[in-house]
Amino acid sequence: MEILTENQAILAKGYQSTGVWCGIKRAKKDLALFFSEQSASVAGVFTTNAVKGAPVLVCQEHLAYGCGRAIVINSGNANTCTGPQGLADSRRMAQLAAEALGVCTQEIFPVSTGVIGVPLPMDKIARGISAAVDSLAAGQLGDAAEAILTTDLRPKVISVGFGPDKRYTLTGIAKGSGMIHPNMATMLAFLLTDAPIGSAPLQSLLKEVTDETFNMISVDGDTSTNDTVLAFANGAAGGEPILLDSEVYAQLRAAFLAACTYLAKEIARDGEGASKLITIEVRGARNRQEARLAARSISRSNLVKTAIYGADANWGRVLCAVGYSGIDLELEKVKMSIGGLEVFAGGVPLPFDETCAREVLSQAEVTITVDLGVGSAGATAYTCDFTEDYVKINASYRS
Amino acid sequence: MEILTENQAILAKGYQSTGVWCGIKRAKKDLALFFSEQSASVAGVFTTNAVKGAPVLVCQEHLAYGCGRAIVINSGNANTCTGPQGLADSRRMAQLAAEALGVCTQEIFPVSTGVIGVPLPMDKIARGISAAVDSLAAGQLGDAAEAILTTDLRPKVISVGFGPDKRYTLTGIAKGSGMIHPNMATMLAFLLTDAPIGSAPLQSLLKEVTDETFNMISVDGDTSTNDTVLAFANGAAGGEPILLDSEVYAQLRAAFLAACTYLAKEIARDGEGASKLITIEVRGARNRQEARLAARSISRSNLVKTAIYGADANWGRVLCAVGYSGIDLELEKVKMSIGGLEVFAGGVPLPFDETCAREVLSQAEVTITVDLGVGSAGATAYTCDFTEDYVKINASYRS
Repeated sequence: MEILTENQAILAKGYQSTGVWCGIKRAKKDLALFFSEQSASVAGVFTTNAVKGAPVLVCQEHLAYGCGRAIVINSGNANTCTGPQGLADSRRMAQLAAEALGVCTQEIFPVSTGVIGVPLPMDKIARGISAAVDSLAAGQLGDAAEAILTTDLRPKVISVGFGPDKRYTLTGIAKGSGMIHPNMATMLAFLLTDAPIGSAPLQSLLKEVTDETFNMISVDGDTSTNDTVLAFANGAAGGEPILLDSEVYAQLRAAFLAACTYLAKEIARDGEGASKLITIEVRGARNRQEARLAARSISRSNLVKTAIYGADANWGRVLCAVGYSGIDLELEKVKMSIGGLEVFAGGVPLPFDETCAREVLSQAEVTITVDLGVGSAGATAYTCDFTEDYVKINASYRS
Repeated sequence: MEILTENQAILAKGYQSTGVWCGIKRAKKDLALFFSEQSASVAGVFTTNAVKGAPVLVCQEHLAYGCGRAIVINSGNANTCTGPQGLADSRRMAQLAAEALGVCTQEIFPVSTGVIGVPLPMDKIARGISAAVDSLAAGQLGDAAEAILTTDLRPKVISVGFGPDKRYTLTGIAKGSGMIHPNMATMLAFLLTDAPIGSAPLQSLLKEVTDETFNMISVDGDTSTNDTVLAFANGAAGGEPILLDSEVYAQLRAAFLAACTYLAKEIARDGEGASKLITIEVRGARNRQEARLAARSISRSNLVKTAIYGADANWGRVLCAVGYSGIDLELEKVKMSIGGLEVFAGGVPLPFDETCAREVLSQAEVTITVDLGVGSAGATAYTCDFTEDYVKINASYRS
């Protein structure tokens, strides 16, 4: 695999992208477009929140057709809780893009992220789509990655070359920041590949990989109404259709896993107000479900996240979060380390060097490892520390 | 009912209390003792966290005996995750108090709150118990209420006079602050009454009332390892034993409900870093379980709590939290108001005066009302806003 990130990342063959300013945000790009030059297989995974944004409903409808030509995304407005008008607006957004691109409406996937409960300014969206289609060109990946951001500080882009002679490319673009606790956050991610694969295997692959990556991150414990991960596979790099269980499928899956893991970690690292990336590795669980529950419970704990912000090896808060995760715990079998320092085993605290702990916890990346000691299953979750800036950002988001 | 709070609250008949400094905390009282002059019926409700503090385990053992003489509480150290030594220390704490008071060890309920994973300094505890027993006297309620606090800013005390001629008194004392999301927080509450009632009816009453009050508050979504609510009923005010379904039982229950609601709200209001009390009223639910799930999901949302801190009527975050609560939601039937301002109904946003909203949300108490529109069940949850001070406090708690 050849992995390129940020400015180096390239767009898979047969795709064009752009990002423009349409006026929803004050002075930042706010409308992105990804266009596949030929019909692509499509897969999607969406929020499990019972309150779903209008664009999520429209994407789910269009997904049933199984093929896609473009994804059109606005930031600054989630078009959620906006009633029948909101649903009509998302449909209209798809229709406007379809007309400008000369394709079918069902092949367009409309996506929105931003404030909830405000009608989508359709005049701005229409002008934006028109400008985006005019400026479409191969390779303007940075503009599109920028235009989908809300309170994110950095664009999140990766490309992975894979397959025989690295003939295939997978490009991944995401946004995260707040309201991030995906069960399938508004996190958005788009995976575009030029490999040839049908919609059905692409969907099962996307679901599996999402569960291991995006569904294992948390910024604030709030599961968004608009979480959307969409994958396109247009086959522009040629070759035979990729079948399940083939060697190329394994390479495709590895490429998806690499891209989604990178993007998931970047979302956690760039969580609202975050100063550190925290990786939580749970091992020795009875089964994967219990490992996930324990890892996600720790990753959601405000007390763990503030302790890491303070570079305080307050491991009792970690065990507390495992304790209320709902798993069946045998405390005397648990082993725990923070930043590689062993702090708890055999049911009792282990002595550790506080100065050393403070040093380790002052790094930009901190790993917490919990071995439950009752099996061999594991799971890894990602989160960020919790700082005053999270509060500042969210006490003034809407107004 | 005659309700007295803070300095005015009185201690029920037949009880003595005190609070002393034993040296666990730097310069604040840290050991409290409640003593019943005669044997009392006892009831207890404890944390559901799988990691339970050693004192919780000892209280559960002693509760099986059904009668109590004293509660001894230290703050500054939770005696949790401290292994077999921790368990021995909690037993010893009970034994020391029993010897000094001349009663049985099983009649003593040891309680600890504070940092997790640090051995209890038994020399200090022993000196503290000795000093506490020496200073026991009727009426020093303020000292005891102060000695159980951790990061709380204010003691939480109430007394309720009830029954014929208000012959009975119920005194309630609590602490809260952080790690507060009780399922049965470390929140601690002690309810002492001089009414005559057996342990079995007292236990069922305590469980019911706790579910409606303490189990409906959240400061940070972290369910503590040491949550403990203990009730004593010593019958010192005389009269016939109070039987289930009697009129006096109804009055006793009303007194417990009033005391626990007051203490629960005071814990939420005094949550770490809090500037406002937020009351969340969910109505129109299919059943009480769904009402509770929705109310607790809103009360746990960092995004709702930061918005209220910012006096921002960002109601989309409230609906988002209802959406991921796990209940079966019919969005078009939902009606919502914030601080009495209607913001959402019939599936669409309602226009409201932003200046007025900002004014209402700048008050010390804010009520959010969500009518789910599908039934007649309801539940009320209490939380606080989420400020930079929560982060400051918890980034430096242990060290």
